[in-house]
Amino acid sequence: MQPLRFVVLLGSLRKASFHATLARSLQFLSPDGVSIEILESVGDIPHYDADIQANGFPDPVVKMGKLIKQADAVIIVTPEYNYSVPGVLKNALDWISRLPDTPFAGKPVALQTGSPGLIGGARAQYHLRQILVFFDALVLNKPEVMVGQLPSKVDQANDQITDPATRDFIATQLVTLSKMVSQRKA
Amino acid sequence: MQPLRFVVLLGSLRKASFHATLARSLQFLSPDGVSIEILESVGDIPHYDADIQANGFPDPVVKMGKLIKQADAVIIVTPEYNYSVPGVLKNALDWISRLPDTPFAGKPVALQTGSPGLIGGARAQYHLRQILVFFDALVLNKPEVMVGQLPSKVDQANDQITDPATRDFIATQLVTLSKMVSQRKA
Amino acid sequence: MQPLRFVVLLGSLRKASFHATLARSLQFLSPDGVSIEILESVGDIPHYDADIQANGFPDPVVKMGKLIKQADAVIIVTPEYNYSVPGVLKNALDWISRLPDTPFAGKPVALQTGSPGLIGGARAQYHLRQILVFFDALVLNKPEVMVGQLPSKVDQANDQITDPATRDFIATQLVTLSKMVSQRKA
Amino acid sequence: MQPLRFVVLLGSLRKASFHATLARSLQFLSPDGVSIEILESVGDIPHYDADIQANGFPDPVVKMGKLIKQADAVIIVTPEYNYSVPGVLKNALDWISRLPDTPFAGKPVALQTGSPGLIGGARAQYHLRQILVFFDALVLNKPEVMVGQLPSKVDQANDQITDPATRDFIATQLVTLSKMVSQRKA
Repeated sequence: MQPLRFVVLLGSLRKASFHATLARSLQFLSPDGVSIEILESVGDIPHYDADIQANGFPDPVVKMGKLIKQADAVIIVTPEYNYSVPGVLKNALDWISRLPDTPFAGKPVALQTGSPGLIGGARAQYHLRQILVFFDALVLNKPEVMVGQLPSKVDQANDQITDPATRDFIATQLVTLSKMVSQRKA
Repeated sequence: MQPLRFVVLLGSLRKASFHATLARSLQFLSPDGVSIEILESVGDIPHYDADIQANGFPDPVVKMGKLIKQADAVIIVTPEYNYSVPGVLKNALDWISRLPDTPFAGKPVALQTGSPGLIGGARAQYHLRQILVFFDALVLNKPEVMVGQLPSKVDQANDQITDPATRDFIATQLVTLSKMVSQRKA
Repeated sequence: MQPLRFVVLLGSLRKASFHATLARSLQFLSPDGVSIEILESVGDIPHYDADIQANGFPDPVVKMGKLIKQADAVIIVTPEYNYSVPGVLKNALDWISRLPDTPFAGKPVALQTGSPGLIGGARAQYHLRQILVFFDALVLNKPEVMVGQLPSKVDQANDQITDPATRDFIATQLVTLSKMVSQRKA
Repeated sequence: MQPLRFVVLLGSLRKASFHATLARSLQFLSPDGVSIEILESVGDIPHYDADIQANGFPDPVVKMGKLIKQADAVIIVTPEYNYSVPGVLKNALDWISRLPDTPFAGKPVALQTGSPGLIGGARAQYHLRQILVFFDALVLNKPEVMVGQLPSKVDQANDQITDPATRDFIATQLVTLSKMVSQRKA
């Protein structure tokens, strides 16, 4: 298989974020030949304002857009805030949606959410799916990675998911995403 | 009827925003005895970050929370971005959801969205409704204010909605919201 | 407190349905003075067809509408099918929505869903909430009853929920619904 | 281009249904080499009941499943009922989801909705999209066919869409769907 480049869009800003650990663990769970790069923080992007856009896209937006455009696939790793997508993540998407080269169009995307409770961020995922229709992204259907009780399933010191079932499940999603990408490139 | 105080949460930052005009027009459309105050800009609130919160809530969050808590009702006036809520508005809600006095709990809320096209922001409204379940807010069901072709229906110089049917419809929603508030206070 | 009458709309037709057990358990979990009546089966209602409606509403629709209209509140107890509301339940709602006396308008409603897995039917609940906006129903926000691993938490022979935490949670929702009804009647 | 077979799943039972006209008009709007077949009525399928399923799938379910499995793509043409999918259509999907050969898995799907008002059935489409994640269907993102004021845009006697812009828009969706299918078969 040819080498593939996946980039990760992370929805949480907290330094000790469990989702950041999840994002960093992906390098250990991805199939051979797949590289994983975590994108710049969505926290570096200003609030969307058409008056700012009129003077040009902020640098971190341009950079993020370019990395998404060049990637073979995007993995969105995010907590759920208030039954939906974190505002800071949605704000990054609001900027990226205005880029003239539409970096998400036709791009394979996988979603990964977690939560302290049992539902695992499901509500955020279906909002993201509706948003990504507008972007014309190709969002992987299954397996859906919604990790309940995420805090108890990570080793933050070593950037690892410790729960074997969760690890296997995520690895399966990454393989599925790789196949989806490879079939499209064939 | 006793005097009522409604506050408006505005989802757009653009200076010449059509939704800002819609928000400012409400003072002319509200029933006697209802005052309308537009809250500080959601653009003054930093991206939500639990590490910031650990050092205390930012001033504009505290202020916004207090004004919502004191108000009789909240009107959310916002464009739809990418089939959902603008990130900058959701970000303000993400902060407010962490305030210990839960300013939205039990609070009557009305939604007003518009769009250049015909759908009028419907998709953003149902995402907002799901979010506001978490806040335990009391979101008015009907009439639903979704203004298609909003740009052609406003007079920005005079802060007015020019389309009579839209004006009547919004005024009806404000009356309905007033009745909902008054019944709860009785 | 004055006596209250709650009716239950059940979304499953299977004889040994776990949700039917959940519905029947409510009589043991409701506060004093609240009676619980399970409505006729949604399976007795034909597929919605405007040509049938033109000749008059089917008897079970009329009857169900009348019982909802007379009730103080409605509890919808349903499984989630394919990430949404069971078709057979939605079909009953499609008929009821056409009744001229709009039995759900202004009616307090609580939602209860379960699932074999951990998510507990959350996806069906938010679709129901969007549907019930059209009905102008007053859907209780919290607590949200989404019972994961429902099959292991019921005693079908005795119509009981066996898991104490789930029982307490449901009882809390019924008390909250009772208070909501009583405040509106006051 | 090789010949393609599209089947249409129709969500309305009414004889003079505007959506039935829309469905029948597709034969005149599809690209060369594409055949359009409207599936049996979803009204012939009984309410989903696991006790019935235990004795075998009803014939119309088996037949519908087989035709979907054999088709190159499915077009779902449906009105919106009460801000969601008609119960009778969801019921057909509930049955098809249990078929062991999962006829929708990996199947390209396009959505077409209309309404008397301006919104054009948008709310039903996003519910369908969430449902079809479970089915692992490949739902076309764009163009989204949501026909506002549908009744005024059809000639029912001749099975035609009379509004040129709507006709062109639907034809564009059919071409896009054809390309999606052809690329996957290549």
